Amino acid sequence: MPDSSTNPIQTLQVDLGERSYPIHIGSGLLDQPERFTDHIAGSSALVVSNTTVAPLYLNRVLTHLDQAGIRHDQVILEDGEEYKTLAAVESIIDRLIEQRHDRKTTLIALGGGVVGDITGFAAAIYQRGVPFIQIPTTLLSQVDSSVGGKTGVNHPSGKNMIGAFHQPRCVIADTDTLDSLPQRELSAGMAEVIKYGLIHDAEFFSWLEREMEGLMRRDKALLAEAIRVSCETKAAVVAADEREAGLRAILNLGHTFGHAIESAMGYGNWLHGEAVAAGMVMAADLSERHGWIDPSVRQRSIELLNKARLPTGAPAGMSVEQFLDIMAIDKKVDAGVIKLVLFKSLGEAFVSDDYNPQLLRETLGNNRLET
Amino acid sequence: MPDSSTNPIQTLQVDLGERSYPIHIGSGLLDQPERFTDHIAGSSALVVSNTTVAPLYLNRVLTHLDQAGIRHDQVILEDGEEYKTLAAVESIIDRLIEQRHDRKTTLIALGGGVVGDITGFAAAIYQRGVPFIQIPTTLLSQVDSSVGGKTGVNHPSGKNMIGAFHQPRCVIADTDTLDSLPQRELSAGMAEVIKYGLIHDAEFFSWLEREMEGLMRRDKALLAEAIRVSCETKAAVVAADEREAGLRAILNLGHTFGHAIESAMGYGNWLHGEAVAAGMVMAADLSERHGWIDPSVRQRSIELLNKARLPTGAPAGMSVEQFLDIMAIDKKVDAGVIKLVLFKSLGEAFVSDDYNPQLLRETLGNNRLET
Repeated sequence: MPDSSTNPIQTLQVDLGERSYPIHIGSGLLDQPERFTDHIAGSSALVVSNTTVAPLYLNRVLTHLDQAGIRHDQVILEDGEEYKTLAAVESIIDRLIEQRHDRKTTLIALGGGVVGDITGFAAAIYQRGVPFIQIPTTLLSQVDSSVGGKTGVNHPSGKNMIGAFHQPRCVIADTDTLDSLPQRELSAGMAEVIKYGLIHDAEFFSWLEREMEGLMRRDKALLAEAIRVSCETKAAVVAADEREAGLRAILNLGHTFGHAIESAMGYGNWLHGEAVAAGMVMAADLSERHGWIDPSVRQRSIELLNKARLPTGAPAGMSVEQFLDIMAIDKKVDAGVIKLVLFKSLGEAFVSDDYNPQLLRETLGNNRLET
Repeated sequence: MPDSSTNPIQTLQVDLGERSYPIHIGSGLLDQPERFTDHIAGSSALVVSNTTVAPLYLNRVLTHLDQAGIRHDQVILEDGEEYKTLAAVESIIDRLIEQRHDRKTTLIALGGGVVGDITGFAAAIYQRGVPFIQIPTTLLSQVDSSVGGKTGVNHPSGKNMIGAFHQPRCVIADTDTLDSLPQRELSAGMAEVIKYGLIHDAEFFSWLEREMEGLMRRDKALLAEAIRVSCETKAAVVAADEREAGLRAILNLGHTFGHAIESAMGYGNWLHGEAVAAGMVMAADLSERHGWIDPSVRQRSIELLNKARLPTGAPAGMSVEQFLDIMAIDKKVDAGVIKLVLFKSLGEAFVSDDYNPQLLRETLGNNRLET
């Protein structure tokens, strides 16, 4: 793990052939307008943000566009997952048409994962696809939605049921924007950072064990390093499997258990990252019950998640049957068998439907938070 | 041009790497269910049709799906371009979710270009993309929307403003379905067939001159041959330029003039193919005024379009200014200059913004239908 304290700006190239793009990570990036204006091919842009983020950063982005001579419009969405709807996408498209943006316009997403998903999807379908740029302002969106090209919105009956694969032209992850992030959301993003250590990189996991206090204090150099390694790991997995045929599924570590928790508790009560944290402990527990991993993997996971102020078990009130019912309608079910991401070792995850159902019930029956 | 009277079924492979797919063309294809059931990877399908086509052919398709053991649902849309909306796409997605279709389901478009465009777009965005099959039942959709992967819907302020590129798994063009097509729609489709001769294939144009009477009598072997050559030409152009960067634009011969006519007359009063027919004559006229082509090109075009019972001039009441105003907001405008598809010779079209504006005004001022 290289020392990261000397150079605050890191750039990672996501290698996807003609759709390759850079991710710039570091402090002060919003004051380096050329990082994104260089990626605007036409002479117009539309910035999409939300009511929380716009007051903090929108004016800086618009000023940079003005100085670069780029005509711009904006759409400010309500803040929250419940607004990740096709109606939000339509409001963006209405504005694009009303202001006569042609197919060379560029969309700029300024906000968290919800803004990024909505904006990316609008860019994917406006005139059959226009360029877009991501400026993620939460830790979760900086490590997760920046890479992979997944865009889309929710349907009243299911999350992310409507969407497209559409890659951004560049991603600007300014770690200064994390200063305004509530601690609970910082922790939720950290759950995904820890996930990358668990699935693919034992050395990174050890580094996180050493540096978690500094990360939670929002040390900029440490955050940039954690974001870079996370994006690099995700990019490597995605590059090997852009359309989610196989390997990419390991990115869902903890997610099948986590979605069940989110769904049972009502969306929004547990943050996604909190539910994933609990789910990762359950995945470690189930792997341990099969004798695939040493008990230390689960123990170290719990300790690290605790340092990141994340839950390490499911809600006390959830029954085993409730878990199984919800997990059975998850998208990762193939012909009735629930596929799970499990461990071969710390730093090596795999997808399996070849586990003992009785051991799964034991995992679901244990691993509970104290009430 | 090979003799086509002996073999009624022709198959053309559209070569797009891993997204390659076959187009089957001929009589009796709807009675060969394996042509499409072989391309259904999962165990479920959703058929989309409209109120005109469903009574004629839907039961045959559903029976084939039953016999192949494929669970199926259906959505029947209203017939007409005015229903090519995001709301129609949402009604398909609602049904897919309500009936728990997973990401291995296959959508089947049974109808003309509108049904194909809507269904293809729903397939493009449902769970970030599911397979779809086209069963086009009009001449226009058999020669045009079967190839190219363009899907999408209209916005109240503009045609095809919302969409995606999404290739079908296969196309079944059963020429028997053309028996139920109104003559005016047969002619409108024939305009696009003639277009392929004009832009790319002088020999095919000559064949059309010889065989137009038989084609208009709906001779199945002749129709299959005309559809095959048209699809082959479009596939060759698209394969060279899948995302419409350059060459593909020649497929828009007559379309910039034609869109202006459709728009000025109110959508639906002139069929798209009728407006394109008039537009192709205008493109020939403008090319002739520059001395790029021999007067015989325009003359032969007019004669062939007449045989196909198509208009060969713009409505008498349209002014030059009306043309120029509408053409200026067309998508093919780049930095204020209207790009047009013009002729180097019969069978060779090219895209140009390097024409004499005064000659354009002359073209727009002439070429009128008698009142």
